[in-house]
Amino acid sequence: MLLLLSGCGNLDKGVSNVDNGNKSDGGNMTTGRIDRSEYQAIINDGRYKTSAARELNATKLNSGYNQDNFESGLLRLSHQTFSPDKYFFQEGQKLDYDTIEKWLARNSDDNNQGLNPADESQPIIFQQLMEQDFLKEDGKTLAGMSLGFAFNSVYYSNDSETSISRDELMANARKTINAVLTRVRKMEGLKNIPIVVGIFEQASKEDINGGNYIYTAVSKDGGTTIADFKAVNESHLSLPVASEVKNIATQDGMSTKFNSFQAAVQNFFPNLVGVTGQVYYVDEQVENLTINIETKYYSKTEITSFTQYVGKQVESIFDSVAGNVEVQINSVEGPQAFVAKKPEQKEIISYIFN
Amino acid sequence: MLLLLSGCGNLDKGVSNVDNGNKSDGGNMTTGRIDRSEYQAIINDGRYKTSAARELNATKLNSGYNQDNFESGLLRLSHQTFSPDKYFFQEGQKLDYDTIEKWLARNSDDNNQGLNPADESQPIIFQQLMEQDFLKEDGKTLAGMSLGFAFNSVYYSNDSETSISRDELMANARKTINAVLTRVRKMEGLKNIPIVVGIFEQASKEDINGGNYIYTAVSKDGGTTIADFKAVNESHLSLPVASEVKNIATQDGMSTKFNSFQAAVQNFFPNLVGVTGQVYYVDEQVENLTINIETKYYSKTEITSFTQYVGKQVESIFDSVAGNVEVQINSVEGPQAFVAKKPEQKEIISYIFN
Repeated sequence: MLLLLSGCGNLDKGVSNVDNGNKSDGGNMTTGRIDRSEYQAIINDGRYKTSAARELNATKLNSGYNQDNFESGLLRLSHQTFSPDKYFFQEGQKLDYDTIEKWLARNSDDNNQGLNPADESQPIIFQQLMEQDFLKEDGKTLAGMSLGFAFNSVYYSNDSETSISRDELMANARKTINAVLTRVRKMEGLKNIPIVVGIFEQASKEDINGGNYIYTAVSKDGGTTIADFKAVNESHLSLPVASEVKNIATQDGMSTKFNSFQAAVQNFFPNLVGVTGQVYYVDEQVENLTINIETKYYSKTEITSFTQYVGKQVESIFDSVAGNVEVQINSVEGPQAFVAKKPEQKEIISYIFN
Repeated sequence: MLLLLSGCGNLDKGVSNVDNGNKSDGGNMTTGRIDRSEYQAIINDGRYKTSAARELNATKLNSGYNQDNFESGLLRLSHQTFSPDKYFFQEGQKLDYDTIEKWLARNSDDNNQGLNPADESQPIIFQQLMEQDFLKEDGKTLAGMSLGFAFNSVYYSNDSETSISRDELMANARKTINAVLTRVRKMEGLKNIPIVVGIFEQASKEDINGGNYIYTAVSKDGGTTIADFKAVNESHLSLPVASEVKNIATQDGMSTKFNSFQAAVQNFFPNLVGVTGQVYYVDEQVENLTINIETKYYSKTEITSFTQYVGKQVESIFDSVAGNVEVQINSVEGPQAFVAKKPEQKEIISYIFN
């Protein structure tokens, strides 16, 4: 049996038996299904099929935080339309690097595909486009697709920053998405498949929480326009919350819980370097809480005792947290240990790295 | 319930219910017992009692590899005399920083406590002394102690390196240990307690496997000399094994298994940066196998699929390995995921970091 303790807050959690990665009906190997609610990916000849366009996320988005939220947020939105029980996952294969680059560029005489304004005095709002594919049970036939559209809340040009209002962003998003859908529907095999669309608002470079998806929709029956978007209620917050700030974490008690945890942990060892947290809310519920503890060098015996102690604190302080709780204990030399609690389980998992 | 998946190869493994860290008989809190065969440590007022001398390990030993092997190896040797079921663990409290520094120094007019030769042309062989304490069930009374003695296999002076033969090292070790025991037995509370002694042969700076314990003994009934040492059979090896080398890993099939794993994993993703391993043998048995996979940046979806795939490979390739198997997947940005298999269990545990 293969057991997955998913630490990826944007994937649903659960534990299940594996089917042992036998050949799918179409003859491809799969990675072996581990978690009931995670997608199983297709591999050919033992090799994972990467996306030709995947490097664009790293170059186009302005921080690792935006990148992570953009990628895993789209996968979360995809679950509602493409159940992991029925579909295989594949990195986007239809839109290649050059195509996406052209679409993201400013419109010009050289590039009439550009979806950003020709006028250089206008900000670039449409910043990145990412494709995720979902295959039928034969492991070959494309059943559907998700497209993540990242839009700038701040546009950085060489010498200035331009803030983009939510209204301006949404006006641009509606126009851009319709244009992209019109083009995509003309591509081979994409005429009638369901396409999940997500609108991601990229946060500024300095924002250590990264951006969020703000709207989603599903384009069905070959549609090339989207009339109604559904609001997405997700947010990423940092802990501790600054004393003057009020947000969902101060309202639902998470901020107080985190402060208790931080105090208990910092009291345990003298000179602990830092305790910080990130919390991810979906529909006002904690989906994922990640805490980072930075330590100086400690001996194996000290780390073992410390990890036991952290486990006890997680158990007592975060007992009522609905989502996944994950504590990473790192030193400058690398990961030392971690402690985790899965959603709706009392059990604490901990691991001390060798 | 608290569950520990111990990744620390030198601690025995097992899973058990926790007793919830209630006050011990003596009124101190404990960290909460997690694993049947790991020591439970004492904490006072929520604060861990560090050793005043602990920084010496970092300054005296010549690599992190030596340091890790020195610390966790002594704890492993302690299990035989001080069962974790009966004793609490505490960082060494009796020998303070200054005392150990004096003992480790060269003998001189200023320091007649120095156990290294006054003659500067002679190498320093006795390099480091570490204390670990074991307390009775009241959490207060010292029941016994372990002393790790590190000796140099290579002595580095300003301008040269001197190799020290095993015979020379052991002659020095016998003399040094008797001298230390004579002094320790005069200290308050240490007259009659059992003292586990370990002789650690520090490896050279360049040796990425670090040193090993080579002999151990138990001093009982207030003894100040040790007549017979028992040989310790432990070794740390690196994987892959260079093609011209023959060692236990090439003899017992571990080397071949690792090469299969490496090939399978490197085929999965193009441009995987590196796959290396460390294996720890005790009495010719694999106690712990740690594999490090260095990746470039990958997306969440790629890491998820990759982790599933690695889990399948561990399950099929390292199925018959008796000890703990641990695979760490890291990128330059930090830990991405890990996969582990506990001794004598088929179950694979994996975790994808958020």
